[in-house]
Amino acid sequence: MKIIVDAMGGDFAPKAQVEGATMAAQEFGIEVVLVGRRAQIMEELEEELGYHKALPQGISIVEASEVVTMEDDPARVIREKKDSSLVVGLNLLKDGGGDGFVSAGNTGALLTGATLIPKRIRGIRRAALSPVIPNREGGALLIDCGANAECTPEYLMQFAYMGSYYVRRVLGRENPRVGLLSNGTEESKGTALQQETYKLLQSAHGAGKLNFIGNIEGRDVLLGGADVVVADGFTGNVLLKGIEGTAMFIMGEIRSAFRQNAVTKLKGLLVKKNLRGLKNKMDVSEVGGTALLGITKPVIKAHGNADARTIRSAIRQAGALAKSGIIEDITANIDTISIKQTDGE
Amino acid sequence: MKIIVDAMGGDFAPKAQVEGATMAAQEFGIEVVLVGRRAQIMEELEEELGYHKALPQGISIVEASEVVTMEDDPARVIREKKDSSLVVGLNLLKDGGGDGFVSAGNTGALLTGATLIPKRIRGIRRAALSPVIPNREGGALLIDCGANAECTPEYLMQFAYMGSYYVRRVLGRENPRVGLLSNGTEESKGTALQQETYKLLQSAHGAGKLNFIGNIEGRDVLLGGADVVVADGFTGNVLLKGIEGTAMFIMGEIRSAFRQNAVTKLKGLLVKKNLRGLKNKMDVSEVGGTALLGITKPVIKAHGNADARTIRSAIRQAGALAKSGIIEDITANIDTISIKQTDGE
Repeated sequence: MKIIVDAMGGDFAPKAQVEGATMAAQEFGIEVVLVGRRAQIMEELEEELGYHKALPQGISIVEASEVVTMEDDPARVIREKKDSSLVVGLNLLKDGGGDGFVSAGNTGALLTGATLIPKRIRGIRRAALSPVIPNREGGALLIDCGANAECTPEYLMQFAYMGSYYVRRVLGRENPRVGLLSNGTEESKGTALQQETYKLLQSAHGAGKLNFIGNIEGRDVLLGGADVVVADGFTGNVLLKGIEGTAMFIMGEIRSAFRQNAVTKLKGLLVKKNLRGLKNKMDVSEVGGTALLGITKPVIKAHGNADARTIRSAIRQAGALAKSGIIEDITANIDTISIKQTDGE
Repeated sequence: MKIIVDAMGGDFAPKAQVEGATMAAQEFGIEVVLVGRRAQIMEELEEELGYHKALPQGISIVEASEVVTMEDDPARVIREKKDSSLVVGLNLLKDGGGDGFVSAGNTGALLTGATLIPKRIRGIRRAALSPVIPNREGGALLIDCGANAECTPEYLMQFAYMGSYYVRRVLGRENPRVGLLSNGTEESKGTALQQETYKLLQSAHGAGKLNFIGNIEGRDVLLGGADVVVADGFTGNVLLKGIEGTAMFIMGEIRSAFRQNAVTKLKGLLVKKNLRGLKNKMDVSEVGGTALLGITKPVIKAHGNADARTIRSAIRQAGALAKSGIIEDITANIDTISIKQTDGE
């Protein structure tokens, strides 16, 4: 297994990327190709990690002189920064120089680059970002969470299939329950987009192709009930960030409750270990990142503020995605996933 | 101040309604008209609260023989259950028999009833549900959170004005910051709805009529930055329920962390008092309910599972809304709030 890492993208690049890569190579035996400015990568390896002569086992470097910033316009950067770590890395992925790709850089540029370079799977209308949201049942896949603000019913139906394959192949759950994110459980709820999508998913369910359980409300994404939550990228993004914000708000309130005075500080120390499980559960650094589904090769978007541990997990996740067979699933079933097929039934 | 309460709507009706009404009458000196089945209301007063001969001070009863259930179709119920506590209560409100109305019953029926009986303020296109979301800055008003799944830019612009008046008049904040809920802060983010609304709000800001601060992401609704968060009812509902679900999930995880064994239970007891502040902050029972803005009279929707304390707070909130002058604000500025006026600038 060989994973390509954009060493220059992200708030803590290249430090977090270089450290995370060496962790993944050591812990999981994954080969990692670091793409970026060789001098900067070497500096991290030498000064921070103490590798002076040879590269760490399993690590190689591919030079890319340019860096994509968070401010770069996604549409232009792919054409104009051809020697960026992002573009060089995606070309390497396309040409078979690795089994998957991880970047913590500019999300829009990664989406555009993945669509233009390794490209979408033939027949897939849009690629979708699909993070696993922590919940009472071990997590639900939210697809899409921001790649496509405007969606059609067909896009959402394709997201349902791709999410379903992911949950089965990567999370190992048989017959994943697919819920459509809406403002109520009744079929009549939602906008025209949800109402049309409901019909498509119901028909796929009737044909035994998808385990559609109906609409799911924002609350039940967290409390459980569905393994895959299908949303347009606008709504999915608002929900994802609302969940993140609520968790940050509550964790902050807990911290400040224990910071009041000497007694509360002591109490805080006493329960710290007990609350760690909660912190871990809400923590993305164990998951790694968000899969971009619908591309011909495994692509993982790690959070912009990813640390070394998160990059390590994202590399493991890219490896799991590559091994899972989900891209083969999508490719083999593309006729089922197309709107004409489902309509015809 | 006299507030009309739908005594029969809600999971714990009429018990919670009757108890909440007596609490509000005692604590705040608000007169409360309980609308519903007199016999059932009297039974609560006699058996639960020990009032045998006379009604509690400030409490009166208006008979209504029918009850709207959660399953009733909103469009039909207003025509067909004319002697329901909801319809009788709203007619009483319209005819000046009270200064505001509180119901914990069927939300759709309340929305339809409020629109058909006391009616919308002339020129307001849609009424909107607007709860206060707890956050780091003492809360933000989310408008709309479910009354209107499909919206136009004009609806959203009107929500921005109504929310702004509410925050100023009821929450007492001068020059409320209005944010448009989107999937990114840049003007280009969102769907066509958000992009068009952005222009309207920017123009209103330029004319000095509204303090529009641009797009706001789901995360910052919780972390702070805006006093009013403008959304279509579909997205607002998903966000609101996502926040509720996340809070319930985290609180549940904290509880179970302290339930592991005798030692953790002891620790839990020790920190219970310290975490109570957090629980209260996330608790809606102190706020009461959600204002339905855009109607000619103050209407408060309390949560279906409202207990007596929540009903008490909702009655206080209806009183505050009636005193605030916000309906007068909307009426006086209706030309400003109409789309032609803003377009013409």
